[in-house]
Amino acid sequence: MEMKLPGQEGFEASSAPRNIPSGELDSNPDPGTGPSPDGPSDTESKELGVPKDPLLFIQLNELLGWPQALEWRETGRWVLFEEKLEVAAGRWSAPHVPTLALPSLQKLRSLLAEGLVLLDCPAQSLLELVGSTHPRKASDNEEAPLREQCQNPLRQKLPPGAEAGTVLAGELGFLAQPLGAFVRLRNPVVLGSLTEVSLPSRFFCLLLGPCMLGKGYHEMGRAAAVLLSDPQFQWSVRRASNLHDLLAALDAFLEEVTVLPPGRWDPTARIPPPKCLPSQHKRLPSQQREIRGPAVPRLTSAEDRHRHGPHAHSPELQRTGRLFGGLIQDVRRKVPWYPSDFLDALHLQCFSAVLYIYLATVTNAITFGGLLGDATDGAQGVLESFLGTAVAGAAFCLMAGQPLTILSSTGPVLVFERLLFSFSRDYSLDYLPFRLWVGIWVATFCLVLVATEASVLVRYFTRFTEEGFCALISLIFIYDAVGKMLNLTHTYPIQKPGSSAYGCLCQYPGPGGNESQWIRTRPKDRDDIVSMVRKGLSDFSSVLAILLGCGLDAFLGLATPKLMVPREFKPTLPGRGWLVSPFGANPWWWSVAAALPALLLSILIFMDQQITAVILNRMEYRLQKGAGFHLDLFCVAVLMLLTSALGLPWYVSATVISLAHMDSLRRESRACAPGERPNFLGIREQRLTGLVVFILTGASIFLAPVLKFIPMPVLYGIFLYMGVAALSSIQFTNRVKLLLMPAKHQPDLLLLRHVPLTRVHLFTAIQLACLGLLWIIKSTPAAIIFPLMLLGLVGVRKALERVFSPQELLWLDELMPEEERSIPEKGLEPEHSFSGSDSEDSELMYQPKAPEINISVN
Amino acid sequence: MEMKLPGQEGFEASSAPRNIPSGELDSNPDPGTGPSPDGPSDTESKELGVPKDPLLFIQLNELLGWPQALEWRETGRWVLFEEKLEVAAGRWSAPHVPTLALPSLQKLRSLLAEGLVLLDCPAQSLLELVGSTHPRKASDNEEAPLREQCQNPLRQKLPPGAEAGTVLAGELGFLAQPLGAFVRLRNPVVLGSLTEVSLPSRFFCLLLGPCMLGKGYHEMGRAAAVLLSDPQFQWSVRRASNLHDLLAALDAFLEEVTVLPPGRWDPTARIPPPKCLPSQHKRLPSQQREIRGPAVPRLTSAEDRHRHGPHAHSPELQRTGRLFGGLIQDVRRKVPWYPSDFLDALHLQCFSAVLYIYLATVTNAITFGGLLGDATDGAQGVLESFLGTAVAGAAFCLMAGQPLTILSSTGPVLVFERLLFSFSRDYSLDYLPFRLWVGIWVATFCLVLVATEASVLVRYFTRFTEEGFCALISLIFIYDAVGKMLNLTHTYPIQKPGSSAYGCLCQYPGPGGNESQWIRTRPKDRDDIVSMVRKGLSDFSSVLAILLGCGLDAFLGLATPKLMVPREFKPTLPGRGWLVSPFGANPWWWSVAAALPALLLSILIFMDQQITAVILNRMEYRLQKGAGFHLDLFCVAVLMLLTSALGLPWYVSATVISLAHMDSLRRESRACAPGERPNFLGIREQRLTGLVVFILTGASIFLAPVLKFIPMPVLYGIFLYMGVAALSSIQFTNRVKLLLMPAKHQPDLLLLRHVPLTRVHLFTAIQLACLGLLWIIKSTPAAIIFPLMLLGLVGVRKALERVFSPQELLWLDELMPEEERSIPEKGLEPEHSFSGSDSEDSELMYQPKAPEINISVN
Repeated sequence: MEMKLPGQEGFEASSAPRNIPSGELDSNPDPGTGPSPDGPSDTESKELGVPKDPLLFIQLNELLGWPQALEWRETGRWVLFEEKLEVAAGRWSAPHVPTLALPSLQKLRSLLAEGLVLLDCPAQSLLELVGSTHPRKASDNEEAPLREQCQNPLRQKLPPGAEAGTVLAGELGFLAQPLGAFVRLRNPVVLGSLTEVSLPSRFFCLLLGPCMLGKGYHEMGRAAAVLLSDPQFQWSVRRASNLHDLLAALDAFLEEVTVLPPGRWDPTARIPPPKCLPSQHKRLPSQQREIRGPAVPRLTSAEDRHRHGPHAHSPELQRTGRLFGGLIQDVRRKVPWYPSDFLDALHLQCFSAVLYIYLATVTNAITFGGLLGDATDGAQGVLESFLGTAVAGAAFCLMAGQPLTILSSTGPVLVFERLLFSFSRDYSLDYLPFRLWVGIWVATFCLVLVATEASVLVRYFTRFTEEGFCALISLIFIYDAVGKMLNLTHTYPIQKPGSSAYGCLCQYPGPGGNESQWIRTRPKDRDDIVSMVRKGLSDFSSVLAILLGCGLDAFLGLATPKLMVPREFKPTLPGRGWLVSPFGANPWWWSVAAALPALLLSILIFMDQQITAVILNRMEYRLQKGAGFHLDLFCVAVLMLLTSALGLPWYVSATVISLAHMDSLRRESRACAPGERPNFLGIREQRLTGLVVFILTGASIFLAPVLKFIPMPVLYGIFLYMGVAALSSIQFTNRVKLLLMPAKHQPDLLLLRHVPLTRVHLFTAIQLACLGLLWIIKSTPAAIIFPLMLLGLVGVRKALERVFSPQELLWLDELMPEEERSIPEKGLEPEHSFSGSDSEDSELMYQPKAPEINISVN
Repeated sequence: MEMKLPGQEGFEASSAPRNIPSGELDSNPDPGTGPSPDGPSDTESKELGVPKDPLLFIQLNELLGWPQALEWRETGRWVLFEEKLEVAAGRWSAPHVPTLALPSLQKLRSLLAEGLVLLDCPAQSLLELVGSTHPRKASDNEEAPLREQCQNPLRQKLPPGAEAGTVLAGELGFLAQPLGAFVRLRNPVVLGSLTEVSLPSRFFCLLLGPCMLGKGYHEMGRAAAVLLSDPQFQWSVRRASNLHDLLAALDAFLEEVTVLPPGRWDPTARIPPPKCLPSQHKRLPSQQREIRGPAVPRLTSAEDRHRHGPHAHSPELQRTGRLFGGLIQDVRRKVPWYPSDFLDALHLQCFSAVLYIYLATVTNAITFGGLLGDATDGAQGVLESFLGTAVAGAAFCLMAGQPLTILSSTGPVLVFERLLFSFSRDYSLDYLPFRLWVGIWVATFCLVLVATEASVLVRYFTRFTEEGFCALISLIFIYDAVGKMLNLTHTYPIQKPGSSAYGCLCQYPGPGGNESQWIRTRPKDRDDIVSMVRKGLSDFSSVLAILLGCGLDAFLGLATPKLMVPREFKPTLPGRGWLVSPFGANPWWWSVAAALPALLLSILIFMDQQITAVILNRMEYRLQKGAGFHLDLFCVAVLMLLTSALGLPWYVSATVISLAHMDSLRRESRACAPGERPNFLGIREQRLTGLVVFILTGASIFLAPVLKFIPMPVLYGIFLYMGVAALSSIQFTNRVKLLLMPAKHQPDLLLLRHVPLTRVHLFTAIQLACLGLLWIIKSTPAAIIFPLMLLGLVGVRKALERVFSPQELLWLDELMPEEERSIPEKGLEPEHSFSGSDSEDSELMYQPKAPEINISVN
């Protein structure tokens, strides 16, 4: 087994995935967004086993000060982007996209065409050549630059094997006419302090000539450097055998440049590096493509998703046609990975993931436990929440198909439990026994769903359903939180005049500050201590908000209602043991009647669990070990039985925390080149982090005495925040905003380029109407059947196929399985090929390279 | 006198300034940032009396559907930027900077070189030519398009005289080889529904040929359209006499394009229109420049400011050397404009300006009046504030040199008054008589300053002084507001446990929402009713915040301290008449001793007044009627006497409200082309709006009974907001942030490109040290001498010349008069010309086209 050092992370990570059981690697390991094949972080060629050309570091040295004070000076450098030396400020500019003037490229071409081109030149002859053009170099202090070279931070970042290319340009007044020379060494040599970093130099481009007006040599030198930093030019010029090949490579470069007209664009504006580089695949010459293997269709994830829907390719969602067939398949698929599920956790990153997810889980346990205790008059509480989270979560991590999932009390289940409690109170039922029977029935129904492979139906859950579900739950969260707060003003009235007392308490979650706790930004600059500190604060901002709220409450000594926590390790409801008695005071036939609410809860659990599972197993995350939709549902059913029997909360997969968990386990390439963004390589898929998180959560039960200082309004605030954050993260909300926005102020959304605005509005209006209907049902005594209505969303979506064309639905939503067939292969392009929408959209297509997070509420 | 219609605003405004007294127009009327000379809103050539080439509207019509369903279809259009037809969505894309592929430009060139070029062709021969290429056009319904043409919103925006150019491109399978034709008509003709808008067509470019792979004709057509939309190409092609000229114009275009390398930039990304277009002046051919008049140095404002300092050119700041010489000059300069100061106000825009500034003034009068009453134990109050504002403001508008100035109680004076009050209380003085003597002395000192032309010293007020002053006052505002709020918790304590009462009140001004009240965004889309409504709300957001605060307070019935307002029209202090008795209970010698604080107050008044005056009279605002530094100070002195005698607050020019006033009177060209931003033409300089505002303020004294519902905490909130807003608007704050920011995250500021970071930090540290010292002095019993310390800032700045080089100070601050001489003419460029910083910065140089607002606190 090979040794890994944490520092080698970037390069270790870009090798082929390890521990792949034979026969399991049936799909392209890189089916989603491809990293740009150029540059140091390219995984592609390594994966395909082809040795890759070394990275080139390009440096522009200019000869300045003719005639009195000749001096070579580095004025620019390139790896992916350009960095310019700010002479006066004595620092490097920020990396930016280089812009050139066309004449300097053309002048460079003619200079090279008439000049000296030495390919595969031995180093000696070069030294003669270059030596003569360095009149002052010998007088430099050779020692100091060498030490600088080794300490150069850029050197640390460049991968081993990188080579240098140097452009030498400037004015030499005694020359009669300009001289151009291009040299490729057979074997690169380290040439003292010629380059800023001590790399072996392979390419040299020399551009010298008589004094010229303006910045001719500077611009020509920049053109040569930009050319040399182009991956396709590099590829060609490494293989060029004569001047003709060199010029052909230059012409190929010219063929592909983007031209901005003068007067509409300031040529000196510095363009920051784009978020994603365009794919280089089309640009590679055909020979190279052949070397790299057969033409794998390299769709970007968004293209892919639009063409085939998000789940079409999942082998997990193929029906086997046998009882429990899916479950058996899931187990078979998962068992070979089991040892690696623990070995893969041996990485430093997993420690920080544990800490981060532990805090999120505890926060969640407190919040939901508090609210559950509130909703059920103490039939359950914080203690049950901690215990249940620990037991169910740990068990799930050990058994489940997708062990990255974090089990948690989720909003929809909480809403249902509240309905169930008020229902049982209306009928004067003994709640926990009744709830036990609901649990038993739910487990039974879920097992039926597993047996019949119902999970393959998740292919009918499109964005329409996901977002309808999410919007409804978010609105319930917001409504409840605001309602609770307003209710408090009755119990704890606001001070009226007449009394001299005057109270002031401001408690609101900062929308910016808290967000990152739920949608965590990925770590960027590991080196930068201050920004890590900054990230650390933002990661725990929700915990900090709770602490601040509690602190303020304690400091001002406010008479707020506090979280109810039992003093000892015993159930929150006084007088009950841990095991719920099967009947209690209820008549026996209620255990049968419980089947009806259980049916509804089963639908809810199924939808909540599977929507989360679909999101987690999306192709963008490049999971290697596959999903386990049937196995996960089976585990949820078993845990349902367990938690009902113990009177603990019910658990399903929580989208947001699970996403945060996955995000904290991202494997990324290290950025080598200035301005480059790290590439997403995959997720550390393992069971250990989740397991440790839940063991820690279980141990935190002894924190309970501390928890009684938490005021309930603080928890309501978090609840409100979660509702608002979830609502603002969905596309539906953006489309509602579009309804209110004049056309000229609308953002340049991809869907607006392809679907008429009236159709977009119609789709949004239908969604709004559905939501309104659901809300009305929820508010009537029929509220308990609302899970059934959620299923109705799928039906409405199906009916929409009669109103909208498949192309429109492709852009507005996703396709359902049948629709896919009704769209021809070239379905992405809406009408004529002339419109060129395919290529015009490409930049936006690259956008969802980082996984699109579609937040549902946890 | 010519008639004006409001609708003609854009074109009326771009004519030469009217009412210029003879002999007064001694400077270039357009010395600051120049509008781009191309496009419809160009003022330059009109000002110079040269007829300008008409605007060109370019349309690309493509022939689609070969061979079965031939159809011409408009797929793109250009005025300044490109708009693409989104075929599927059936709408025009947002305007964007066009990007081209180089080969399509080259193919276009070769097609034209071999094709048919008809210059000054009579319309008949064209019709024969074009008629044959429109096989389907005759079958179109000719009526409907014509009606559409006239109702096209684009038509309304294009100026009279605009012409059309049409590119016709597409595949015609029967052609053996590609055919290119370029036609310029001698006289443009309206050609039915050929163009989307009914404009006379002048240019035609026809690109037809056999079927070609990809989007060849589409891209070539786009290249032709982009070429035709280039102002320099238009200029050349209008004057071309043969094919050679045409190709030369195309080559000149190619010479100037910006090239982005492939692989580093997605060629299909849509670049939004830049905020400012690069200057076209350099691009114009020499003949054209000659026609346009002598080579006026067209510096951008930032360049200009950096080269010469902000005030170097003001004739108002030249010392005459005679007693009251400056004052007399000011009066002489202003008198000829006096009639126009009322006539120029006859414009609808002035109505909305009055409403807007009236509300700002009333808000200010309430806030400062309330705080002043608070600070002086009711020696003054809201009633005095209203009365004083009305009297002083109106008088100033009638007499002053810069009638756009809005007089107001300002922060520094309020701070001083508070110090003065506590001083007089410490010595058991009768405050108002003592204050009267202070006022008399201040008026005397100010008259001395006017007599000795001291106002020319404002040239020594650089950004260093302005921002030091501003930062100190802002911090005092913030400190005071927070302190007051915390003090309230003593008088009105927060509810402690034990009582069942529980209070909650959240009142904080939204940082985003309120901002626009102070830095108002200029109106953009007059047509767009929703966004005007939106703007209206944001303009009055501070008033809304007050109303909301009051409403919440009233609704919850909180026992907050309220604004103290007298019930009748009589002074707030019980028992005093309107005229302050000269001695009161004070010993006579206090009237002499008052000279000492008066000296300090004079310094403060001088600095506060003149810093505001300098900001208001900056070159960026293109004021035509000149400033009146001496006259303004004279008016302030006279009003000082008046307000002291009546026991009213003291007034000087208020920066922020005056800037808002000027901003609401901006004259802007109407944007004609999609994506174009309106050009700033100047300010409606007149006295009437200010006068009406203050008359209305005076009338609002009868509002007083309503004002007693305003809680003081609401006013403290506004005070706090003003402090934070002012602090965050200054460059000093940005530099303090730089201190805390790692280098790689720092923004690409111009000064960071030119000054080493350590020098920037040193400068910031010195400023921070000064501020700390000022704060300490302010907090000791010596507080009253702090105006003197402010003057010390000028001295410190002078001393900095020994620490920093003039080049560094040029970027970090501005130059003081002596330093200007020490920088050579090419001083902007830091070292060698090779670095090219001059051109590299150009984009940033364009930025402060809209006046740079440097907020001081009002």
